[in-house]
Amino acid sequence: MNQQAPQDAPPSAALRPGRVARPAQPARRAAGAADRPTLRVGVLGSGTVGTQVIRLLLEQADDFAARSGARLEITGVAVRDVDAPRDEAVPRQLLTDDAESVATSNDIVIELIGGIEPARTLILAAFESGASVITGNKALIAAHGPELYAAAAAANTDFYYEAAVAGAIPVVYALRESMAGDRVTSVLGIVNGTTNYILDEMSTKGLSFDAALAAAQELGYAEADPTADVDGLDAAAKAAIIASLAFHTRVGMDDVEVEGIRSITADDIREAHASGCELKLLAIAQRVSSEPDGVEGISVRVHPALVPADHPLASVHGGFNAVLVDAEAAGRLMFYGQGAGGAPTASAVLSDVVAAAAHRVNGGQAPRESSYADLPILAPEQALTRYQIQLRVADAPGSLAAVAQVFGDHDVSINSVRQASYVDVGDELALVTIVTHAAPVSRLEAAVDGLRAQERVAEVVSTRRVEGL
Amino acid sequence: MNQQAPQDAPPSAALRPGRVARPAQPARRAAGAADRPTLRVGVLGSGTVGTQVIRLLLEQADDFAARSGARLEITGVAVRDVDAPRDEAVPRQLLTDDAESVATSNDIVIELIGGIEPARTLILAAFESGASVITGNKALIAAHGPELYAAAAAANTDFYYEAAVAGAIPVVYALRESMAGDRVTSVLGIVNGTTNYILDEMSTKGLSFDAALAAAQELGYAEADPTADVDGLDAAAKAAIIASLAFHTRVGMDDVEVEGIRSITADDIREAHASGCELKLLAIAQRVSSEPDGVEGISVRVHPALVPADHPLASVHGGFNAVLVDAEAAGRLMFYGQGAGGAPTASAVLSDVVAAAAHRVNGGQAPRESSYADLPILAPEQALTRYQIQLRVADAPGSLAAVAQVFGDHDVSINSVRQASYVDVGDELALVTIVTHAAPVSRLEAAVDGLRAQERVAEVVSTRRVEGL
Repeated sequence: MNQQAPQDAPPSAALRPGRVARPAQPARRAAGAADRPTLRVGVLGSGTVGTQVIRLLLEQADDFAARSGARLEITGVAVRDVDAPRDEAVPRQLLTDDAESVATSNDIVIELIGGIEPARTLILAAFESGASVITGNKALIAAHGPELYAAAAAANTDFYYEAAVAGAIPVVYALRESMAGDRVTSVLGIVNGTTNYILDEMSTKGLSFDAALAAAQELGYAEADPTADVDGLDAAAKAAIIASLAFHTRVGMDDVEVEGIRSITADDIREAHASGCELKLLAIAQRVSSEPDGVEGISVRVHPALVPADHPLASVHGGFNAVLVDAEAAGRLMFYGQGAGGAPTASAVLSDVVAAAAHRVNGGQAPRESSYADLPILAPEQALTRYQIQLRVADAPGSLAAVAQVFGDHDVSINSVRQASYVDVGDELALVTIVTHAAPVSRLEAAVDGLRAQERVAEVVSTRRVEGL
Repeated sequence: MNQQAPQDAPPSAALRPGRVARPAQPARRAAGAADRPTLRVGVLGSGTVGTQVIRLLLEQADDFAARSGARLEITGVAVRDVDAPRDEAVPRQLLTDDAESVATSNDIVIELIGGIEPARTLILAAFESGASVITGNKALIAAHGPELYAAAAAANTDFYYEAAVAGAIPVVYALRESMAGDRVTSVLGIVNGTTNYILDEMSTKGLSFDAALAAAQELGYAEADPTADVDGLDAAAKAAIIASLAFHTRVGMDDVEVEGIRSITADDIREAHASGCELKLLAIAQRVSSEPDGVEGISVRVHPALVPADHPLASVHGGFNAVLVDAEAAGRLMFYGQGAGGAPTASAVLSDVVAAAAHRVNGGQAPRESSYADLPILAPEQALTRYQIQLRVADAPGSLAAVAQVFGDHDVSINSVRQASYVDVGDELALVTIVTHAAPVSRLEAAVDGLRAQERVAEVVSTRRVEGL
């Protein structure tokens, strides 16, 4: 951009000075800054993420002004206890316990309180006051997304929430905007860093669940009450958001089938390794087409699943997140990065702030809710998946044929069969591991029931879903 | 969204019918479609990508209308030869050889001709007519980006080019919008599928460069004249675009240091493997801070480099693309997917079309050129990198100390030293492989010159850049 022209004028290639003649930068920035409008920014909450957001907005004020077209002035930071000790990055004079006032007296409101209330009421008040709202509150969106979208549309302002899913990884952006010219067929993700850290510790160090959880708590990856993470609720909220965006359909928390990792044992991990797999907690949003059972709709679920060791999700370690998106035209895309933490989440929040600020300066709006496709949400038993089933069978001729017959009777195809030679299961029993092809859960469960009833099957030792085959 | 309300009214959660009461979809879509404005879309070029774009726009017209807020009507497809045989997805009555008319009589113009002219003139004419322009033309943007941005701004329309970098992977989006709240420090990418395919064939099958190139040509991955790919020019155009976006600085083709893969031999690949590395053609955009040499600016380059086998880029196989972005707050993000091909590239084009259409319906604009940071572009010798240097040295006490002294004299730190025991280099010579820490190329080259002058060094066998350590 030419330094004599006002910063908002179109850049002129002809007038642009050569590299040699460039003036020093600070003078140019100051000249441009004077022309820009100022937008008032209020922050609700000043925890790890809020502190980073405030620090970056203050430290890089010139950059934000250049990128958004407006000076961003933090006018207030609402906290519960103004006198509590906190990071010096947050100027004390900005602190207030009047959250309502911060919510309703700004152009842009950043909600980082978390939880349903008072976050919901404050956000609705912010919209009503005409503010654009940025949040990272996945639980609130999964529970009240349509209400929030409606409030933003009624006020003709923006609603952004990139930080709600997978931290700095632009998953919301990708699904809401980059995939807008395509049809998503499935999304498979590791979207909860705490549980991935726990499972990774169990996998790489042979720890028990309790020991791995304790390690995660010690490092601050897991909270004192780890319920939301280990029971899969945090991932389920993200799965609901992902599915809503991917399939242009309203998906709430209640639509998500959820199973956490609390019951995973060190034995389960060893068995996964023996099968050439890793055990991961996956968030899955899947479009099921009419074949083969006349079922059409979407399956949204969170559960532990076996993932082949050479699958990209198998090598997502520690607290990292990764999301695989399959779309009809784009093929497979993968996004990978830090899914949590103050700075990465702040990066996501601030990209939304820049977009919202640019809209207030130049016009335009964030994407509105897109729910036109309105696809049916399938019951858990209609989901398509693969099972790995471990059986003890009579070690005699004809056993395998009898077992295979059960699968055939239930119209389930077998992908692989493996008979363990290294496990001592007694003289007359063999341990057999079977992986099926994809089939609806209802048929897979019926096949398992059939196996239990088969007289040559002594025991169904375990059943486990397999994804990413 | 409620089906009685006009499609553009705010959704009302209270009025929304339950899932059970949903009416059939086609009726709702038709009702909504009638309210929508129609936007005229012109397509310049009807090759692989253009054909897919047209097919998807026609096949999924209702989806595109719902997502963009407008019916998208293709009014013309400009081709060189109207009578040439082509895919039946392109309706013959849309074909015309009057490209100028297609460029200047539409709301949205999609340029898929490629090359500089007539693409540049047609795009400028399109902007002048008030059209929004979507292109995947990396060479044109790298050569004339500022002129095109200026024309879009002067006409107050949109300029989008997601398809110019890494096909369906939303790299442009991520850098232009998702990273807008952060400071990018480096981008490291495999952005040319042809060369990655060739190097991957050489690596996994031991092929020579010529054999791998022939295989790529046979499969349609490489063109009959492979210059733009194998000499790194295609990757350089993408590197220029990436660097411009990442660092808010104008970077053109001439600013990019380029070295292709034509001289890579099967021996080079074997040596890479012996060092625990893969050899990849990388596009690098790197911010170099003032330390350690008082140099500040950006380095933009394309060259083959060794990448450790456990680095994420080492396992990018075949024609896939991957881009690693490091940013101050976000940390490291990785994007992975199909970087070329008709359908993936069409997916990228169509996401831009939806964004541009939404702006025409609802107001708002694509991001304008951001070049406020205006960082100096460093000379090739100022780039920070690491060298792997192979030497034959006298196999006698004191040789290694003498070699180490040369590095110390040039202020280059050594990361690792390995003496090959399995290579027969003669009775009195040893083959030594040294990997340095990061240093400016100027110092690394000076160290290599120093090694050549050292009497205990019989030969500097090879020097190779190492990235991703």
